[in-house]
Amino acid sequence: MSRSATPTLPRLLLEPVVRNALKEDFGRIGDITTNALVSPDATARARLVARESGIIAGMDAAMLAFQLLDADLSVEAVCVEGAAVDAGGLVLRIEGNARAMLAAERTALDFLARLSGIATATARAVEAVKGTGARISCTRKTTPGLRVLEKYAVRVGGGVNHRFGLDDAILIKDNHLALRSGDKNGAIASAVRDAQAAAGHMVAIEVEVDGLEQLEEALQAGATKILLDNMDVEELKRAVEITRSRAILEASGGINPARAGEVARTGVDVISIGALTHSSSALDVSLDVEPQR
Amino acid sequence: MSRSATPTLPRLLLEPVVRNALKEDFGRIGDITTNALVSPDATARARLVARESGIIAGMDAAMLAFQLLDADLSVEAVCVEGAAVDAGGLVLRIEGNARAMLAAERTALDFLARLSGIATATARAVEAVKGTGARISCTRKTTPGLRVLEKYAVRVGGGVNHRFGLDDAILIKDNHLALRSGDKNGAIASAVRDAQAAAGHMVAIEVEVDGLEQLEEALQAGATKILLDNMDVEELKRAVEITRSRAILEASGGINPARAGEVARTGVDVISIGALTHSSSALDVSLDVEPQR
Amino acid sequence: MSRSATPTLPRLLLEPVVRNALKEDFGRIGDITTNALVSPDATARARLVARESGIIAGMDAAMLAFQLLDADLSVEAVCVEGAAVDAGGLVLRIEGNARAMLAAERTALDFLARLSGIATATARAVEAVKGTGARISCTRKTTPGLRVLEKYAVRVGGGVNHRFGLDDAILIKDNHLALRSGDKNGAIASAVRDAQAAAGHMVAIEVEVDGLEQLEEALQAGATKILLDNMDVEELKRAVEITRSRAILEASGGINPARAGEVARTGVDVISIGALTHSSSALDVSLDVEPQR
Amino acid sequence: MSRSATPTLPRLLLEPVVRNALKEDFGRIGDITTNALVSPDATARARLVARESGIIAGMDAAMLAFQLLDADLSVEAVCVEGAAVDAGGLVLRIEGNARAMLAAERTALDFLARLSGIATATARAVEAVKGTGARISCTRKTTPGLRVLEKYAVRVGGGVNHRFGLDDAILIKDNHLALRSGDKNGAIASAVRDAQAAAGHMVAIEVEVDGLEQLEEALQAGATKILLDNMDVEELKRAVEITRSRAILEASGGINPARAGEVARTGVDVISIGALTHSSSALDVSLDVEPQR
Amino acid sequence: MSRSATPTLPRLLLEPVVRNALKEDFGRIGDITTNALVSPDATARARLVARESGIIAGMDAAMLAFQLLDADLSVEAVCVEGAAVDAGGLVLRIEGNARAMLAAERTALDFLARLSGIATATARAVEAVKGTGARISCTRKTTPGLRVLEKYAVRVGGGVNHRFGLDDAILIKDNHLALRSGDKNGAIASAVRDAQAAAGHMVAIEVEVDGLEQLEEALQAGATKILLDNMDVEELKRAVEITRSRAILEASGGINPARAGEVARTGVDVISIGALTHSSSALDVSLDVEPQR
Amino acid sequence: MSRSATPTLPRLLLEPVVRNALKEDFGRIGDITTNALVSPDATARARLVARESGIIAGMDAAMLAFQLLDADLSVEAVCVEGAAVDAGGLVLRIEGNARAMLAAERTALDFLARLSGIATATARAVEAVKGTGARISCTRKTTPGLRVLEKYAVRVGGGVNHRFGLDDAILIKDNHLALRSGDKNGAIASAVRDAQAAAGHMVAIEVEVDGLEQLEEALQAGATKILLDNMDVEELKRAVEITRSRAILEASGGINPARAGEVARTGVDVISIGALTHSSSALDVSLDVEPQR
Repeated sequence: MSRSATPTLPRLLLEPVVRNALKEDFGRIGDITTNALVSPDATARARLVARESGIIAGMDAAMLAFQLLDADLSVEAVCVEGAAVDAGGLVLRIEGNARAMLAAERTALDFLARLSGIATATARAVEAVKGTGARISCTRKTTPGLRVLEKYAVRVGGGVNHRFGLDDAILIKDNHLALRSGDKNGAIASAVRDAQAAAGHMVAIEVEVDGLEQLEEALQAGATKILLDNMDVEELKRAVEITRSRAILEASGGINPARAGEVARTGVDVISIGALTHSSSALDVSLDVEPQR
Repeated sequence: MSRSATPTLPRLLLEPVVRNALKEDFGRIGDITTNALVSPDATARARLVARESGIIAGMDAAMLAFQLLDADLSVEAVCVEGAAVDAGGLVLRIEGNARAMLAAERTALDFLARLSGIATATARAVEAVKGTGARISCTRKTTPGLRVLEKYAVRVGGGVNHRFGLDDAILIKDNHLALRSGDKNGAIASAVRDAQAAAGHMVAIEVEVDGLEQLEEALQAGATKILLDNMDVEELKRAVEITRSRAILEASGGINPARAGEVARTGVDVISIGALTHSSSALDVSLDVEPQR
Repeated sequence: MSRSATPTLPRLLLEPVVRNALKEDFGRIGDITTNALVSPDATARARLVARESGIIAGMDAAMLAFQLLDADLSVEAVCVEGAAVDAGGLVLRIEGNARAMLAAERTALDFLARLSGIATATARAVEAVKGTGARISCTRKTTPGLRVLEKYAVRVGGGVNHRFGLDDAILIKDNHLALRSGDKNGAIASAVRDAQAAAGHMVAIEVEVDGLEQLEEALQAGATKILLDNMDVEELKRAVEITRSRAILEASGGINPARAGEVARTGVDVISIGALTHSSSALDVSLDVEPQR
Repeated sequence: MSRSATPTLPRLLLEPVVRNALKEDFGRIGDITTNALVSPDATARARLVARESGIIAGMDAAMLAFQLLDADLSVEAVCVEGAAVDAGGLVLRIEGNARAMLAAERTALDFLARLSGIATATARAVEAVKGTGARISCTRKTTPGLRVLEKYAVRVGGGVNHRFGLDDAILIKDNHLALRSGDKNGAIASAVRDAQAAAGHMVAIEVEVDGLEQLEEALQAGATKILLDNMDVEELKRAVEITRSRAILEASGGINPARAGEVARTGVDVISIGALTHSSSALDVSLDVEPQR
Repeated sequence: MSRSATPTLPRLLLEPVVRNALKEDFGRIGDITTNALVSPDATARARLVARESGIIAGMDAAMLAFQLLDADLSVEAVCVEGAAVDAGGLVLRIEGNARAMLAAERTALDFLARLSGIATATARAVEAVKGTGARISCTRKTTPGLRVLEKYAVRVGGGVNHRFGLDDAILIKDNHLALRSGDKNGAIASAVRDAQAAAGHMVAIEVEVDGLEQLEEALQAGATKILLDNMDVEELKRAVEITRSRAILEASGGINPARAGEVARTGVDVISIGALTHSSSALDVSLDVEPQR
Repeated sequence: MSRSATPTLPRLLLEPVVRNALKEDFGRIGDITTNALVSPDATARARLVARESGIIAGMDAAMLAFQLLDADLSVEAVCVEGAAVDAGGLVLRIEGNARAMLAAERTALDFLARLSGIATATARAVEAVKGTGARISCTRKTTPGLRVLEKYAVRVGGGVNHRFGLDDAILIKDNHLALRSGDKNGAIASAVRDAQAAAGHMVAIEVEVDGLEQLEEALQAGATKILLDNMDVEELKRAVEITRSRAILEASGGINPARAGEVARTGVDVISIGALTHSSSALDVSLDVEPQR
């Protein structure tokens, strides 16, 4: 394995999500149009194609949508997960029972459109920071119920993941400090100590700071991961100088893929961008079906 | 009740969605940062505010996120669902246990951001068709697992809903026709007949046509709801003239909110826009917390 | 496809229902009698037969009950779904592991008995209206938790389905009118307008009327589907005359299969019968097992 | 407590069943008719009444249907569970929010209709055996997914329950004997021994016999519960004489409530009737709603 | 079948438990270490071995853990369920995809370790009572959520099961008597009568007594299963004498496997030991993996 | 907050676990003994007491078991979570409906017994390392389905948690190294690099080493958390010397609470003990109930 290890999501976890999406579309009795109009024996060939250029993510989910309806459908991946496709690019080839194909179509496309949209936006940001040491990261600003898949799409686009939830890492924010009683001098140091005491050694701890003074305080408290909140490029540069590699620095707040390059050149280690998951446009994908005789 | 009937989503259906979103963020043990740093007895006041202008949707979901964690939290709706807010506009006021407030924050914001984003885009399209008879509708191009809430947000924005799934109405598309064997003359008429035979009288049937010839065929087949797929403005005008109110006409395919006004002025009855749900940006909302002494 | 399109229920939706029924019978540890008495290697042959004449429905559910317990069981459908069988008629032939066969027996029979009972009653009503244009429909008076399967059995028996729930079509009833404030003149027209405003164009709207005056009011309001509640044959005839095909007329209320023919000859389009699902007797079916050497 | 201990079903177990039934009726978005037509603030009074005479069962389920939609609804039980009501008899009085009341109506009625139908049939059979020592019992021939409630209704009607599933008691049937290899002499004795060896002392064991010879064999094997399958009245009398109280005798097979008295007078201890749960008609119940000013 | 009938747990019931255990370990995205370090194509061979002597239970669960992750893994049972193994004893051989193998490892081991621990303790108690007529039984003192598997492990170890829950048999305890109002004379007789009246004939009834007087009272009340609570060996002997085989006697309370032999020799029929399920040590098992070239 | 921050488990996560445990005990119809024998109106007082000394954990779960059955039960915590109690020590006082109390008894006790058993064993190990800098940690060797609660009990006992699953931290083990192809020189360094590349900056990475050479290699690779597998005390001491605080050192493998002190005095930072969760004895707790008049 190497840096290019392909992101994966185990079928054990993916399958229930795809199954639920199919059920959401099937409602009580499934595809009444197709069942009324298309013979149960009809077979077809279909091509799932991109109608605009982008990075493909969600192939497993799309393929599973077809396979869960009919295990006998032949579903062939024409490109690989993470591939860059142009408009018209072929993604999947499907062959077999026509009813199952039509019934799975929208679910397969909805997964692929959304996840590819996120991967495409991520890849743009990754491209923008190329040559710097910065990595592009997501946030927890995701669609309720779909976080795991959206964060997976960020990985497919070349990004890395931030925390998956409130429980898998500690992020000390201004609200936490504000809500702790007592002297504000040394507030960060005291919070870091309490966090270390509560957490085992396998839990990462990051401190959010909104200015250079707080940064110094965090560094003195021994923080090894520091989130620089809403700083402009000049402040970020100063933060990098002050830190002198004693901690991983993450720039966050109001950064979009377009600004990522500029931010990366300040020398920060990580740039986290909420818009990757909360405001990416879907990639336009569609299914072309033809009868098979 | 009147045309202005407020859209609603019963708590019976909303609560499991919000509960799952909270669990998605809580993972195995919940908010380890807050539990390590903030006293279980600490209380706080918070204001949930919009940071840009838009239409608010998802208040019930956001309020429920707080209430499911602590039934004793006071959560006050400052504006009504569907209200237009400016940047800085106050949406909710929350008071009570600080831990619960922080733990619910992200889930509440993620619902409100996404649903308000959709409502805002919908409202823009509705505004664009004002004065015409056209209504703005959504499609089935939604985020897997969140369709019901996304379609609800379209209603909050002033739109109406298309089918919720494959089972609650019939939409005869080109793929269905292509996959039916036999003579292509009268294909639409034959399909409409089969659809009527299979469905009870409480199921709506719509026929998709991609040209004026097919439109004539559909009208002759007695279709009362016709989807005009990917037609340009001139074709749409002709379709309206040909139809002479014998059927409800829906324009669909590649329409964005900006083009909606122009399309509406052709005289069509419904304009359906997939981008409302698959590519709207989140509305920027945030929570300001302060200790309460 | 044609009018005789076989009703189907996708396995995606059927399987969880059958699995739950098996679990209901298995309880905590399954078939303790068989496990104590029959060797794990014993094989058997079984014949599932009808012990009285009727219409068979639920073959997929019954077959699935066996297959979910042991994918290696050979389960052969001897007749087709919807077939008319006589007493003694063979429905399924099963061969393979004896333990699985016995453990699935009751679940398979319970599905087949109940669904065939409903299909049989429906078929009798359909037979009674033969030669008229009337269709036989079900209602929402179903067994809690089994509505989708019971409505499916109505389709197998030759009937059509009314609404599946409160959400997939609008039915304006007297209670709705009674609970709306304001002038009662034009109550139906106002209700129809509000319903049309709230619903998209893909939602069917039906108005229940309990007399000919209300019928006129509904027709003037433009209602295209009208439920005639608890009218006698004379009133129904008058309703058909008044309506002159401007709307689909559904007769409902206290109709049993025996009365269906008389009602159909009034010229109504649909006859809905709650008793099909809430009071049909089970069809007597049983499983004959013999060892296989 | 005494013989008249009221049957109960814990809310922990009942609530999910009622909730699922409501969801089945609500589908994706709930009662679109009521939400379009009735003000969210409207209040109403309703009376749930029986339209034919019978035994009421399912009051908790019906009440819960209303309460789960709106905890503020006042739902008053006018009669007690198990009460005999005449046509027109008042069962529940409900007051409060009109929307919730209408949305719960069908679910509440469907539970009450089905369970009361079963309780009524059971009570008739119990009445028929009055004065004999026989008890009326159900079987496992129940509606898939609703067994626990249907068996509860049998208790409400004055009956007792047979096994709830394959796992909570042992019932040795002819199929089990047929599928055991080896000498058929002493087949019952050997099966009883194996059953006793496999089961702990808290598991009841019953042996099904289809003739008097098998009965003798079962008695010699020490069986203390014996099911007499499909015997006529004369055979049953002989069986009672032969047994001389050494075992509990259960008559089963093709018995309907009308025949129960005759069967009971043979002296058997238990009469089990599948038709109680698989073929009872629903009791006719309805909800009368009026606005509350 | 014979006394040695192998205990079984149907896959229908076992699979969801194993699947949930895998999900518990997988959390949101599964085995991030293996996915980062081991090629998706790597294959391996593994041996699951016992590191101390004991009785193996849980083979199906362990095998299923591997198979649910990758149906193509070859998983071979080297010993049979219930086998006695020595330290170093080989239990399973697995071959195939390395990633799936590593991801399932902990779940497979955790099932096997716990269930084998229970089976081993049970087998020791069974060995201790060898030659007496006593059987070893479990109680309801089990790990929440795992009762069915833990009771299964008791069967594998040669024990029998007591009740599985509050609903499948009646056990009248001192608390029940204390909470019944009225005269305490004849309290047991009255309770037994009420229990018999409430339960059908397929429900076993046991009475707990804490002294010889209560034992006499229970016997006179016709109790056929009596639990002797916390009696010492002398009292137990007296109880056996008094009872003269009129009832099954179960000794319970503070008995550990070591004391079981002594208790058994008093002549009681059943000895129930809570410690089998609530305090057994896990059996030490591990997985040795090596690459396969 | 401070080092003594009380461990918590949010009700959102705890409630489903307790509810499932109650359902496991209730089976199909709940407590048939109590319902047959105790009046629905009877009230009682109960005291939940420890029958041996130990550390109490699981109070919330136990209290919830009572409250979920009857919200009107008064359930009073007499000691605090984590309290040391002696034999006879009072834990909870419950007052109210007698039926609910008896029905919840076993579930409440089973949670408390198991979690207190784990907390007690953990506290012993923590006591043993007092005065050293070492912390006591758990492993993933937990009861399937109960990991979150068992790890919580470790925190209550004064320990800290290791990873919760395969997804929340990286632990590079010998098996991973063995399954990577290529040159074995620098195997650890290469694995650490790949792990860092795949994971975001919020994921902790630990390397398992089984000898001092591997330790050096890990330190050179920049590993900051190192698990010393199965080393004896002398080796551990050498490891501490070699490391010179460049990494957190965790001793693991075959350590029981009794050996913990000796291990701690080598200077390691963390001692992880699988036996805490896989082999702790339950704490003996019971419920004393008396009628309330």
